[in-house]
Amino acid sequence: MAKERLAIVGGDAAGMSAASSARRRDPDLEIVAFERGPYTSYSACGIPYFVGGLVEDADRLISRSPDEHRANGIDVRTRCDVVAIDLGARRLTVRSAAGEEAQEPFDQLVVATGAEAVPPPIPGAEAIEPAQTVDAAQRLRAALERGGRTGRNAVVIGAGYIGLEMAEALVDRGLNVTMIEMAAQVMATLDADMAEHAQDAAEGHGVRVVLGAAVEEIVLDEAGAPVAVRTAEDRFEADHVVIGTGSKPAVKLAEAAGLRVGDSGALRVDDRQRCPGHDGVFAAGDCTESHHRVLGSDVNIQLGTHANKQGRIAGINATGGDDRFPGVIGTAVSKIFRYEIGRTGIGEREAQQAGIEVVSATIKDRTRAGYYPGAGPIWVKLVAAPDSGRLLGGQIVGVEGAAKRIDVLATAVWAGLPVHELALLDLSYAPPFSGVYDPLLIAARATAKLL
Amino acid sequence: MAKERLAIVGGDAAGMSAASSARRRDPDLEIVAFERGPYTSYSACGIPYFVGGLVEDADRLISRSPDEHRANGIDVRTRCDVVAIDLGARRLTVRSAAGEEAQEPFDQLVVATGAEAVPPPIPGAEAIEPAQTVDAAQRLRAALERGGRTGRNAVVIGAGYIGLEMAEALVDRGLNVTMIEMAAQVMATLDADMAEHAQDAAEGHGVRVVLGAAVEEIVLDEAGAPVAVRTAEDRFEADHVVIGTGSKPAVKLAEAAGLRVGDSGALRVDDRQRCPGHDGVFAAGDCTESHHRVLGSDVNIQLGTHANKQGRIAGINATGGDDRFPGVIGTAVSKIFRYEIGRTGIGEREAQQAGIEVVSATIKDRTRAGYYPGAGPIWVKLVAAPDSGRLLGGQIVGVEGAAKRIDVLATAVWAGLPVHELALLDLSYAPPFSGVYDPLLIAARATAKLL
Repeated sequence: MAKERLAIVGGDAAGMSAASSARRRDPDLEIVAFERGPYTSYSACGIPYFVGGLVEDADRLISRSPDEHRANGIDVRTRCDVVAIDLGARRLTVRSAAGEEAQEPFDQLVVATGAEAVPPPIPGAEAIEPAQTVDAAQRLRAALERGGRTGRNAVVIGAGYIGLEMAEALVDRGLNVTMIEMAAQVMATLDADMAEHAQDAAEGHGVRVVLGAAVEEIVLDEAGAPVAVRTAEDRFEADHVVIGTGSKPAVKLAEAAGLRVGDSGALRVDDRQRCPGHDGVFAAGDCTESHHRVLGSDVNIQLGTHANKQGRIAGINATGGDDRFPGVIGTAVSKIFRYEIGRTGIGEREAQQAGIEVVSATIKDRTRAGYYPGAGPIWVKLVAAPDSGRLLGGQIVGVEGAAKRIDVLATAVWAGLPVHELALLDLSYAPPFSGVYDPLLIAARATAKLL
Repeated sequence: MAKERLAIVGGDAAGMSAASSARRRDPDLEIVAFERGPYTSYSACGIPYFVGGLVEDADRLISRSPDEHRANGIDVRTRCDVVAIDLGARRLTVRSAAGEEAQEPFDQLVVATGAEAVPPPIPGAEAIEPAQTVDAAQRLRAALERGGRTGRNAVVIGAGYIGLEMAEALVDRGLNVTMIEMAAQVMATLDADMAEHAQDAAEGHGVRVVLGAAVEEIVLDEAGAPVAVRTAEDRFEADHVVIGTGSKPAVKLAEAAGLRVGDSGALRVDDRQRCPGHDGVFAAGDCTESHHRVLGSDVNIQLGTHANKQGRIAGINATGGDDRFPGVIGTAVSKIFRYEIGRTGIGEREAQQAGIEVVSATIKDRTRAGYYPGAGPIWVKLVAAPDSGRLLGGQIVGVEGAAKRIDVLATAVWAGLPVHELALLDLSYAPPFSGVYDPLLIAARATAKLL
């Protein structure tokens, strides 16, 4: 009998996690991974730090190179574009960098095609390469190091967490940065009251934040380089333009092959990362849906942490294992200038949109005992079910030491703890880490009072 | 009808929390609090930082002064020693600083007498004042500032977390510090393998750590000032001696009055902080037992966080409310030189002592993404039930950002999450805060593999 063959489409976190876990479980399996770009297993989350110069060398962002994967017995084909999947014949059509097409058979398949940037539909946007991959980030950084016409002005379009992280990177490079956001607040994943603190942090470091403004054009010079960004009311000079208007799951290839796409726009999978109706076909990472345990619906959340877990599970199940992905609760964290920002579960706005009735309280406190050096502000907002008091979500903004507390709330949301129980939970205390009542306990008590 | 009168014995965290919550609930109640020392509501946990000079002014350690409490309608009597409680007649015998005794009636009583240092039973120990109160800490700091014979050498007896925090304070003051500990490890609340990292941190900052050595004498000069500390095998020159050999619940007064003391040596209370068999009599804080939810037994854990919660609950229940203290799980955190150290639930040693079978795994990881500046080591040890996989405890040592993760484990222990569920929990990820798998997830997976 010929060897079984596992093919993987996409060589980043989800795909290579699948390849690696399959390799560990089955040393005889033939494993081939096709990646469009030159790199595998890189940290897209690290790109802003490379652009800003906090991370000097792009290689640091690569957790495992193609050659390292090859040494592990995984046949990695970089610069190879999978252009078609034939689920019936169980083969891929793959186009090499030289433009040659070949047929590649598979027994099991993992689709890990990730996400693709959604540029704003305006003139000039086509000239701006999204800095989503390591090679694109290298080109952006080279451009920043060369400078532009004046070398001093940058515009970031979109004020989500990636836009904000990129704004910080550009400030770190000494540029004057303007952020333009269509919505009335930065960071749409936060409630407006909490997002204001993130905006304060950006403005406090000199970023000009323009809200409620739709970009109409990226003005280019004859060479196709950016000159300015134009909204209905303003024009902002821009030697450099960074687009951070989000990404959508890259599902065209899989959809054309007949895999189902859910309401979120991402591939449907069950809790074993299987594509329903297609034996031996799995999907994982940014291109897939995940079950949201609080909302009770399927969502698309593009995060490396999910991609790694789902990829591993796909690899386990593709090799005869039986592992399940338990779903997500929307936990995320980022560092935005002087503040750390975390969120988990649902916020007030999401609750309203989902028709879930909630109570909510926000408190302001200090990250350390008041007398301990380095204490700074922390805001904690909790959202709970009005009947049971069950914690449904939390948002945290504050100075160093604030954000990782979101994991405590994530654990409480996950376990279904009510806020009145959280208010008396045995959390740690010492002056370098909190006041005698941790801010989370204070927030839980404030919320419990509303029940 | 005359006003009801609530008397409180002890004016620190538990006592004044009780007074304050009773005041909020009942504006008409007469509330009197008797405190032996000159201060109320101070942070004993902050004393090492005041001794070391990180906190310049002792007043910063006082969260609410006697006058502030008085302005809140609480009759605070400082420098007043309660020498007897007559539960039948419902009155206290109180001795003033001038030595005069008076009878003070009460309707409800809260006993919050705290803990008292247990000096080693050796010659010379009587000359060393324990630095447990703000005024004692002021005297110690004054002595350090004056210097000693040479002004250069200090010995800390006892290597628990307070001993280690005091050692750091003395190093901060430029002293040569030797720690002498009878046990074979520092920090008895940690398993030996985790305690080694704390010892490394102390030694890495120049502290000489002497383990397995019983102190036999504190050698004094004619004036009663320390000269040296002598063990069976060595003699250590010492201009200053700090004793950190622990404290015991201060229960003599309450026990003499007929209140029950449990196996832990602390006052027995029910989950409403009531002293069983005595209506209207409550106890809270370091002098009481707490129910340990993992061990299933009653323990004495002296921590400001419990004292504050229990005091508040006592005050609520003393004024006709019905609030319950849900118990503890042994969560604690401290900063020891370059490492942060946290623990919750039970460790391997405690499990063994309690006859609880466990599995345990320890992992070493980094606090941030490897490429992000400031990443450093973190060790996570988990202890779980071998059948259910339920998390029973965790210990964490690591650089900045490590220790507050213990609250995630505390929440998981509290909620009874199994390690295989924890391993896939939706914890936050961004490069400044962790690798793509948080160290807690990695530790949970390592532990789950043992099931």
